[in-house]
Amino acid sequence: ATDISKLPRVKQELVAPPAVPKHDQVAKGGPKVVEVRMETKEVLMEVAPGANVWALTFNGSVPGPLIVVHEGDYVELTLVNPKESTLAHNVDFHAATGALGGAGLTLIQPGEEVVLRWKAVKPGVFVYHCAPGGTMIPFHVISGMNGAIMVLPRDGLKDAEGKPYRYDRAFYIGEQDYYLPNDGKGKFKEFATPAAGMHEMLELAKGLIPTHVVFNGAVGAITGDNALSAKVGEKVLFIHSQANRPSYPHLIGGHADLYWVGGSFSDVPLTSQETWFVPAGSAVAAAYEFHQPGLYVYLSHNLIEAVLLGAALHMNVEG
Amino acid sequence: ATDISKLPRVKQELVAPPAVPKHDQVAKGGPKVVEVRMETKEVLMEVAPGANVWALTFNGSVPGPLIVVHEGDYVELTLVNPKESTLAHNVDFHAATGALGGAGLTLIQPGEEVVLRWKAVKPGVFVYHCAPGGTMIPFHVISGMNGAIMVLPRDGLKDAEGKPYRYDRAFYIGEQDYYLPNDGKGKFKEFATPAAGMHEMLELAKGLIPTHVVFNGAVGAITGDNALSAKVGEKVLFIHSQANRPSYPHLIGGHADLYWVGGSFSDVPLTSQETWFVPAGSAVAAAYEFHQPGLYVYLSHNLIEAVLLGAALHMNVEG
Amino acid sequence: ATDISKLPRVKQELVAPPAVPKHDQVAKGGPKVVEVRMETKEVLMEVAPGANVWALTFNGSVPGPLIVVHEGDYVELTLVNPKESTLAHNVDFHAATGALGGAGLTLIQPGEEVVLRWKAVKPGVFVYHCAPGGTMIPFHVISGMNGAIMVLPRDGLKDAEGKPYRYDRAFYIGEQDYYLPNDGKGKFKEFATPAAGMHEMLELAKGLIPTHVVFNGAVGAITGDNALSAKVGEKVLFIHSQANRPSYPHLIGGHADLYWVGGSFSDVPLTSQETWFVPAGSAVAAAYEFHQPGLYVYLSHNLIEAVLLGAALHMNVEG
Ligand SMILES: [Cu+2]
Ligand SMILES: [Cu+2]
Ligand SMILES: [Cu+2]
Ligand SMILES: [Cu+2]
Ligand SMILES: [Cu+2]
Ligand SMILES: [Cu+2]
Ligand code: NA
Ligand code: NA
Ligand code: NA
Ligand code: NA
Ligand code: NA
Ligand code: NA
Ligand SMILES: [Zn+2]
Ligand SMILES: [Zn+2]
Ligand SMILES: [Zn+2]
Ligand SMILES: [Zn+2]
Ligand SMILES: [Zn+2]
Ligand SMILES: [Zn+2]
Ligand SMILES: [Zn+2]
Ligand SMILES: [Zn+2]
Ligand SMILES: [Zn+2]
Repeated sequence: ATDISKLPRVKQELVAPPAVPKHDQVAKGGPKVVEVRMETKEVLMEVAPGANVWALTFNGSVPGPLIVVHEGDYVELTLVNPKESTLAHNVDFHAATGALGGAGLTLIQPGEEVVLRWKAVKPGVFVYHCAPGGTMIPFHVISGMNGAIMVLPRDGLKDAEGKPYRYDRAFYIGEQDYYLPNDGKGKFKEFATPAAGMHEMLELAKGLIPTHVVFNGAVGAITGDNALSAKVGEKVLFIHSQANRPSYPHLIGGHADLYWVGGSFSDVPLTSQETWFVPAGSAVAAAYEFHQPGLYVYLSHNLIEAVLLGAALHMNVEG
Repeated sequence: ATDISKLPRVKQELVAPPAVPKHDQVAKGGPKVVEVRMETKEVLMEVAPGANVWALTFNGSVPGPLIVVHEGDYVELTLVNPKESTLAHNVDFHAATGALGGAGLTLIQPGEEVVLRWKAVKPGVFVYHCAPGGTMIPFHVISGMNGAIMVLPRDGLKDAEGKPYRYDRAFYIGEQDYYLPNDGKGKFKEFATPAAGMHEMLELAKGLIPTHVVFNGAVGAITGDNALSAKVGEKVLFIHSQANRPSYPHLIGGHADLYWVGGSFSDVPLTSQETWFVPAGSAVAAAYEFHQPGLYVYLSHNLIEAVLLGAALHMNVEG
Repeated sequence: ATDISKLPRVKQELVAPPAVPKHDQVAKGGPKVVEVRMETKEVLMEVAPGANVWALTFNGSVPGPLIVVHEGDYVELTLVNPKESTLAHNVDFHAATGALGGAGLTLIQPGEEVVLRWKAVKPGVFVYHCAPGGTMIPFHVISGMNGAIMVLPRDGLKDAEGKPYRYDRAFYIGEQDYYLPNDGKGKFKEFATPAAGMHEMLELAKGLIPTHVVFNGAVGAITGDNALSAKVGEKVLFIHSQANRPSYPHLIGGHADLYWVGGSFSDVPLTSQETWFVPAGSAVAAAYEFHQPGLYVYLSHNLIEAVLLGAALHMNVEG
């Protein structure tokens, strides 16, 4: 067995999505302990004009930040629940093995913090989310408390022919379904605290039809000045997670040159995909090389969800 | 052509799910005729406290029992409709070829029985269900009348590298969506007979949103004393069917080491899957080797369906 | 770069689905410019008795016609918006690269026409649809304005072992979800013009539950005299598109001998699939060799959608 105390340690500075943290595609040297820190912040967030939600978050964003490590690395998470919080939180990593994905070890009350260390043994992109038990699980997840981790193979990605594949940019798209109660007169309700809205939100959620489906927490969050950008000739990796529902990402005018089913980097990627399916509760990855400049729209191709509920973003590609 | 009358015959004792019948992973000798017997029992079943359904079943359980054969074997089913029944029933095997999957040949009234023999030519796991025609089809299926068959390759399963893969245990998880009418005052209705509730159930079903989504027929059916169990170091095969809706199985703290897309054993399985997608109307298979002891939760990762509608089970893994 | 003006030109006569245009499976000679013509016709269409919709169509059918070309060919579409039309239309080809899949270049008012030429670089089956911007996008798509293109590899299809695969017949099944408002007394509303029904249809669509899910535009459109037909021993290719929702095609009594995930012909097809999943916003392909005669039912295996909402068709197979 490895003596973890002898492994080199690196701090990973997490960033707000759709950005991804600075990382090497091919690992330099042997396994490391990658230290990350996340705060379980409860923030009142505007989902759309007139529609606010008490977002339960990792680091204040919906979704939480993307973590990037390599297969064989250890993730050492310091999870901090600020004393301003009103609820207990934890984290379940789908990429982790055993013990409820870490959820059982990390439940912390406001003002507490905990350290969880686990080894990344499966290469791919995986969801993490808060899972405090019982009805708190769907409540926290549909309130935004989920994110993703990318576990890269040590020698980087491979294309469908097994050749090394290197991307020029990567973006992390976290899709969120919200179930916001209304007052019966066409207005969305506001609640004084996260817990105050829980019962009504869950009653609505039982119907399984969200009022909003968005990228990066709010309708239009990734448009205008916040649109994605890339250059013609660049290969772009898209990591797309949906912790609770299926999604059907499509890039209008583009395709997935490569699509890793279920986000698994240990399998041969598919090619020529118009839609890259995201099974509920998972993250997937797709790559596209841009051939032409222009404004691209990236959406979930239930077009009702994309246009009427919010699941669309913009991307500027310069020639 | 084979002279079927010369083939060896074996009786397969079917068992209630999540158990699977005793079987060899690698076939001994040549093709056999595998005799199975199923009764189309109509039973009042408690789905949740205060919520009962006239379950239409094969052998009294929801789902019906898993049948296990090998590619090239013949399935010889004796289907018995007890005289106490109120409805005609039949069976459509997705694994069979031609003639409506057997449905056209097997429709029997209460008090009748029929024998159907067919050859298993495709390796994989497949749904079977009652399909008596017209609106009776969805009615019987959403009343629980479905199950699965596993057709193993004669030389057993292979992993992603083509090496023989042997499991230590197998479980069959049948997921059921129910659409139970309520009385408008918050109580679920009870009906005197299966047919009495049919119209209201189908009207509700048209809305496509189930009131319950459960494993093994009822909320919490596979928890407590009925929880699954395994030991650290064991490889466990999960067969998961959903005859009417998509499902998103996930094992908290585990993964699919192997996942056979669409349940096909003639294709290379995927690896490192956090969710193993079940397309509506199909069965799939996934395998996981347990590395750590503990109480695992296996659920469909629409967490609303898992926690609020019932799609979760427990598994004890001893160290 | 290719001098497109020197390429041979062929006209492709489009036909109403489920028929497919006459085509070679293996390309003869080098790349061609394939000329096709589509009219954006607005037609009052009966979806079911008492349920009419202002269908927005390509060439008068729902779905629009299948276009068939080979990888490397150019598609030269003349899109004509008849002067009788009430709305502007365009076309977004998922198979095209750049510039919103052509949508930005093709928006035409009633009485206008436009020519769009693009190169088919990805082999597979792909959706096309009208995408006039904003809420007009889901409105046109859920009013029927979508179809598919098949881009064959120049040397034709290959099976799971890489051997040439030739089909004897091909059918194009376009699945359509409708959201038809009712008058509160159990009757579906009729509107004087397409635009008159738009607001109510979109309000209903926000709930994500269709009132009808059909093949070829109407309940039962592919039954009786319009049923598909084939002969025992024939290999049949099914192309199935759904521009807005997932679908779960299943052939009762048959299987997918071959199923191209996401409709991609540049990937190895899967085998032994009982359901061939169609992610929302995509087209897929599956092939089956019929071994037995009879009346087959092909449906989407959410059986509620198949039987109660309309997603089923019939196929006669002669011995
Ligand atoms: Cu939380
Ligand atoms: Cu989870
Ligand atoms: Cu039945
Ligand atoms: Cu079926
Ligand atoms: Cu249009
Ligand atoms: Cu599209
Ligand atoms: Na997990
Ligand atoms: Na994943
Ligand atoms: Na079948
Ligand atoms: Na299957
Ligand atoms: Na596209
Ligand atoms: Na496709
Ligand atoms: Zn690393
Ligand atoms: Zn598009
Ligand atoms: Zn490209
Ligand atoms: Zn056998
Ligand atoms: Zn989990
Ligand atoms: Zn393992
Ligand atoms: Zn051609
Ligand atoms: Zn069937
Ligand atoms: Zn066959």
